[in-house]
Amino acid sequence: MSFNTFGRLFRVTTWGESHGPALGATVDGCPPGIALEVATIQHWLDRRRPGQNRFTTQRREPDEVEILSGVYEGRTTGTPIQLMIRNMDQRSKDYSAIAERFRPGHADITYWQKYGIRDPRGGGRSSARETAARVAAGGVARAVLAALVPALNVSGYMVQMGARAIDRARSDPAAIESNPFWCPDAVTAALWAEDLDRLRKDGNSVGAVIEVVARGVPAGIGAPIYAKLDSELAAAMMTINAVKGVEIGDGFSAAALTGVENADEITMGPDGPEYGSNHAGGVLGGISTGQDVVVRFAVKPTSSILTPRRSITREGEPVDVVTKGRHDPCVGIRAVPVGEAMMACVLLDQILLHRAQMGEGLRGSIGP
Amino acid sequence: MSFNTFGRLFRVTTWGESHGPALGATVDGCPPGIALEVATIQHWLDRRRPGQNRFTTQRREPDEVEILSGVYEGRTTGTPIQLMIRNMDQRSKDYSAIAERFRPGHADITYWQKYGIRDPRGGGRSSARETAARVAAGGVARAVLAALVPALNVSGYMVQMGARAIDRARSDPAAIESNPFWCPDAVTAALWAEDLDRLRKDGNSVGAVIEVVARGVPAGIGAPIYAKLDSELAAAMMTINAVKGVEIGDGFSAAALTGVENADEITMGPDGPEYGSNHAGGVLGGISTGQDVVVRFAVKPTSSILTPRRSITREGEPVDVVTKGRHDPCVGIRAVPVGEAMMACVLLDQILLHRAQMGEGLRGSIGP
Amino acid sequence: MSFNTFGRLFRVTTWGESHGPALGATVDGCPPGIALEVATIQHWLDRRRPGQNRFTTQRREPDEVEILSGVYEGRTTGTPIQLMIRNMDQRSKDYSAIAERFRPGHADITYWQKYGIRDPRGGGRSSARETAARVAAGGVARAVLAALVPALNVSGYMVQMGARAIDRARSDPAAIESNPFWCPDAVTAALWAEDLDRLRKDGNSVGAVIEVVARGVPAGIGAPIYAKLDSELAAAMMTINAVKGVEIGDGFSAAALTGVENADEITMGPDGPEYGSNHAGGVLGGISTGQDVVVRFAVKPTSSILTPRRSITREGEPVDVVTKGRHDPCVGIRAVPVGEAMMACVLLDQILLHRAQMGEGLRGSIGP
Amino acid sequence: MSFNTFGRLFRVTTWGESHGPALGATVDGCPPGIALEVATIQHWLDRRRPGQNRFTTQRREPDEVEILSGVYEGRTTGTPIQLMIRNMDQRSKDYSAIAERFRPGHADITYWQKYGIRDPRGGGRSSARETAARVAAGGVARAVLAALVPALNVSGYMVQMGARAIDRARSDPAAIESNPFWCPDAVTAALWAEDLDRLRKDGNSVGAVIEVVARGVPAGIGAPIYAKLDSELAAAMMTINAVKGVEIGDGFSAAALTGVENADEITMGPDGPEYGSNHAGGVLGGISTGQDVVVRFAVKPTSSILTPRRSITREGEPVDVVTKGRHDPCVGIRAVPVGEAMMACVLLDQILLHRAQMGEGLRGSIGP
Repeated sequence: MSFNTFGRLFRVTTWGESHGPALGATVDGCPPGIALEVATIQHWLDRRRPGQNRFTTQRREPDEVEILSGVYEGRTTGTPIQLMIRNMDQRSKDYSAIAERFRPGHADITYWQKYGIRDPRGGGRSSARETAARVAAGGVARAVLAALVPALNVSGYMVQMGARAIDRARSDPAAIESNPFWCPDAVTAALWAEDLDRLRKDGNSVGAVIEVVARGVPAGIGAPIYAKLDSELAAAMMTINAVKGVEIGDGFSAAALTGVENADEITMGPDGPEYGSNHAGGVLGGISTGQDVVVRFAVKPTSSILTPRRSITREGEPVDVVTKGRHDPCVGIRAVPVGEAMMACVLLDQILLHRAQMGEGLRGSIGP
Repeated sequence: MSFNTFGRLFRVTTWGESHGPALGATVDGCPPGIALEVATIQHWLDRRRPGQNRFTTQRREPDEVEILSGVYEGRTTGTPIQLMIRNMDQRSKDYSAIAERFRPGHADITYWQKYGIRDPRGGGRSSARETAARVAAGGVARAVLAALVPALNVSGYMVQMGARAIDRARSDPAAIESNPFWCPDAVTAALWAEDLDRLRKDGNSVGAVIEVVARGVPAGIGAPIYAKLDSELAAAMMTINAVKGVEIGDGFSAAALTGVENADEITMGPDGPEYGSNHAGGVLGGISTGQDVVVRFAVKPTSSILTPRRSITREGEPVDVVTKGRHDPCVGIRAVPVGEAMMACVLLDQILLHRAQMGEGLRGSIGP
Repeated sequence: MSFNTFGRLFRVTTWGESHGPALGATVDGCPPGIALEVATIQHWLDRRRPGQNRFTTQRREPDEVEILSGVYEGRTTGTPIQLMIRNMDQRSKDYSAIAERFRPGHADITYWQKYGIRDPRGGGRSSARETAARVAAGGVARAVLAALVPALNVSGYMVQMGARAIDRARSDPAAIESNPFWCPDAVTAALWAEDLDRLRKDGNSVGAVIEVVARGVPAGIGAPIYAKLDSELAAAMMTINAVKGVEIGDGFSAAALTGVENADEITMGPDGPEYGSNHAGGVLGGISTGQDVVVRFAVKPTSSILTPRRSITREGEPVDVVTKGRHDPCVGIRAVPVGEAMMACVLLDQILLHRAQMGEGLRGSIGP
Repeated sequence: MSFNTFGRLFRVTTWGESHGPALGATVDGCPPGIALEVATIQHWLDRRRPGQNRFTTQRREPDEVEILSGVYEGRTTGTPIQLMIRNMDQRSKDYSAIAERFRPGHADITYWQKYGIRDPRGGGRSSARETAARVAAGGVARAVLAALVPALNVSGYMVQMGARAIDRARSDPAAIESNPFWCPDAVTAALWAEDLDRLRKDGNSVGAVIEVVARGVPAGIGAPIYAKLDSELAAAMMTINAVKGVEIGDGFSAAALTGVENADEITMGPDGPEYGSNHAGGVLGGISTGQDVVVRFAVKPTSSILTPRRSITREGEPVDVVTKGRHDPCVGIRAVPVGEAMMACVLLDQILLHRAQMGEGLRGSIGP
């Protein structure tokens, strides 16, 4: 079934195809009275916008968002917010050659088999362009979080491209915005630039790992069992195009740890419990501890590449597929702002759910 | 908010605490006319049952399921199926010592902070005992799948315990049922036995990685964007106790691949498309390809250990926590049947969703 | 699809058949820390219990509820509450005669056509017995409301049986509990007793209209458009067996009014706005005004009657159906506590939803 | 909470305010391959369009719909369909006088109290203008129904305006489209015209009752308990602005019937069961019988009237409210196409749900 909505109370429904007239997000459940302007959202869209450097697709999209509803005199009214982004740079001719064939590793074939129809222009609905709508919705979520939990801060960055990971010892948050890879390690960023130039020349592409951290998340957010904060985050990140793995805190590395090593020891600090480490990634039993919430996700290499790959046509005939057009050689780069947007949406949704069941604040205090 | 339901059409709501009178699952949305007996479900529960060997908790629970509704004369009626498992071996005294303190790495502290009340007996709702209800529900899902998609088969096994992974070259499905670790590599299983004996003696525990494979999943199952099959699977697996990471197909390894390497090349076979490899883990664009659907998840080490760890009491006083009682030294072992159950539930749910939107079968054919 | 859950945050899933081993309700999303005992819930079940006078079914069911989960030391924990009621007085032989035929006006035929299988014992899932589970869940909702909004009070009563309606001028709340019809007009109650004795002797049955009023509902509960408080109430009441109509405030009578007559004029009172009348039934634009929330619903006559009616068998053969057994001659009577339960559940759900989006209290104040 | 979505699988989210730049509907879950053009949807919007005669608001809105996504080369793709209608005739000055005061009987006051902010221009989100988006979505639902169940037909009409009801003996479907009231009784339509002219001159308004009938609905659609077809229809109709009552089949009249009278007797016809009457309105136990599905709903009189009514300002000061502007004297008239749209959406949603659980067609056959 075509579920295009995520969230339980803060609900985002995205719509639109890569080369249709527009795409957007319908945001329902937003608290009222929140200051919200086009510029607030545009700020986040500009970070994701394609064509800003040689390492992302050269499609030129201004990605200007319009707010069609739900905001009055600069404040949200509590009614649905419609965010629309017009598609400007549509070159459908680039894609006509592949309408009848299936790119290996791409959704072309599964869409066709499932639906018996697909919009082949730019990948239609399966295009990473859908993530622009998420970033816009994430902009709304951030505005609400800024009002409800001012200390909360979401930051994403790339920690691995291809086989090359950052050196955490060199990691510096200040570096993130100063290179085209959202890389906190400037030395590695420079090496990635070389790697990616070579891959592009070869008509190839590469995968990546993104880390998104939320600081200032209050303790108590999330829920046991099927609304676990980690499960909601995993679902959210895994809906991003090309994502194939998600982990929280130590994630897969935790499998290699013993219980003694993995225990984040607790002490009492002046403002509540403090933790000696954060193997858990800020989530225990599905509920936030108050530590940093740490999520990582793996993005596979772009499937649309210039190197020929064997495939078939709709008639079942063998064909070598070569994908020309304007594709990101490492789609992971532009996934950074998208991962941030998903983190913001999930946290806000869970904060509203907490408030519904528990009222304001925590129920259980620790201390004398 | 306390969401204890998963699934969109095949909806499972679990309920119950570790040391309450009973726990169970309310299964809604099951197709009617499916042959279903207690024995069918009991079969799967027996695989998860504790106390069957020295590597799992020594709590003695027969885990006998009762079907309280939704089945008439051995067939499902389409109405809700209530599955109840009584708790028999409750030794609440084991846990009284820790009612006032928080185990590091455990949900104790977050439940308390969020709710201001928790059932401390055996971990209450946060106990892995909740997963018995999932396995029961999974038994229903398997019975329905057997009727709707007879070729579909779900199989889980452990591929890593602590730092030691299996050798895929030695992997043999026949081995899975012949060791206490659901390990397809008998050599590694023997080493794990040694490892785990040592860890138990040390009052320690260890993490693991589980792989669950579904064979015979038809192409076309899943959906784009927020109901992606991989996202649904990630959410489902991440809701299992102690799971900290999920990946599909090559998962995190895909980040290190190039697009050329990662492309699963397509050829035309006698029954439809065939693929030269399965980096994608059977899912493209959120929709199944017809290949094996491959999911892996990481389980952190059990947090309830005999080795003392620093923590605090409810009054904020420092305390060394030592957890006696009957805990699994590697909770990953018993997560294997749970992962299978979640896979079965997700696939059935998505198959019903596909049928709702598309009717029976696929819409788009490939071939002359 | 078999959706057996209602509510968005306070979610009730009922399960069970009339003559199975048990039935019950899984209540999810309950706030924690609420005092809840079996006796609290049993109180409401006792009001609905059959066989308490000659005007309801003579089936003898103690309807004793068990709390299987979600409550610890007399308080809710925020986890799912499983409420189970065992079926004790099952006389399946009473129903064997009708397993192969369809009662006119009954769900027999539609269940059969839809599912191809049905539990014919006592109507199976379509039995009014399912409403016991709702009353139990309503007991939980009332306990929560008592804690969150102590002034809120829900009261149901019968205002019409057959063609005979109460005289509102004689209406006295004190009378409601003193006759078997929950009738606020003692004179009419006496006439109903005569009417119903005659109908029973004739092997006939009759319909009724129930009114449920909630006093003390805060202003601001509900939402515009598709979560309108009136829509939620209409859906809830219409799910009760045999209900064929629902109205809010003046309801269908409002169609005959002019805008001048229908305007509930507003003045400013010491504690906020006051209204000169309540045509609206306490809801404007889907949101509560703070006045009494007034809902009425129509219950059709019981379809299981002793008078022969023409029908067909499963083989399509004509047959005269005469339904023996223990049926309510006016199922509307026992619908009163059920209507109250649904009102309580809907209001609590909406109060939680309000709290999620708005935080505690109202956002807009009126006054100098 | 601001839930602006209805439907379970065929999901419609409406957005937009009366005087914002645009409003619309996001339609998710639509089956693929359905022929759909702007003209198909525009046809239904034209029926609801204001200003077509002197009995509806004189606001001039072309109500031209744009399809922004989900359709490719004239067929639905299975992805979300965004339907946008721009607001053209916005005269915000008309409403400035009432921004600070509350119309009696209007959502002005409850929106303000709940949200602390509202868009006062033309009623903002509470305007009946929102229903244009429903009619557009209903146009999509009708297109799908035409493909899936060609015999299914939905027809709405007005059966009462003020105190004057139609004479069913004179009722003629052919008359419905030939008068401005969608009235099947031409004689009554003429009287309504006189009634309404008089009311308008008096600065007054009036209520109405609408009936919507669906013919050709297959047996088996709907579900027991909380997804009852009648409950879904009641919820849907009650979400339409100003609706205060809903009934199915005989509705409130059924309360006055005996079981003997109310039994729709069954005989075997050449194509399946036939019924001697339709007191049930085509629904038994929440599931369709195959007879006409008959719903009626009551619309209260427009609250925006020229006759002064007592009210208060935001500061709590007394004020006489007189609402100028372009209001429908009987908002029930334009509710007819809206009721049809809701019927179409509910039926399609339930048909998809049936297909999910049951596969194609019915499970239980009747006959030799």
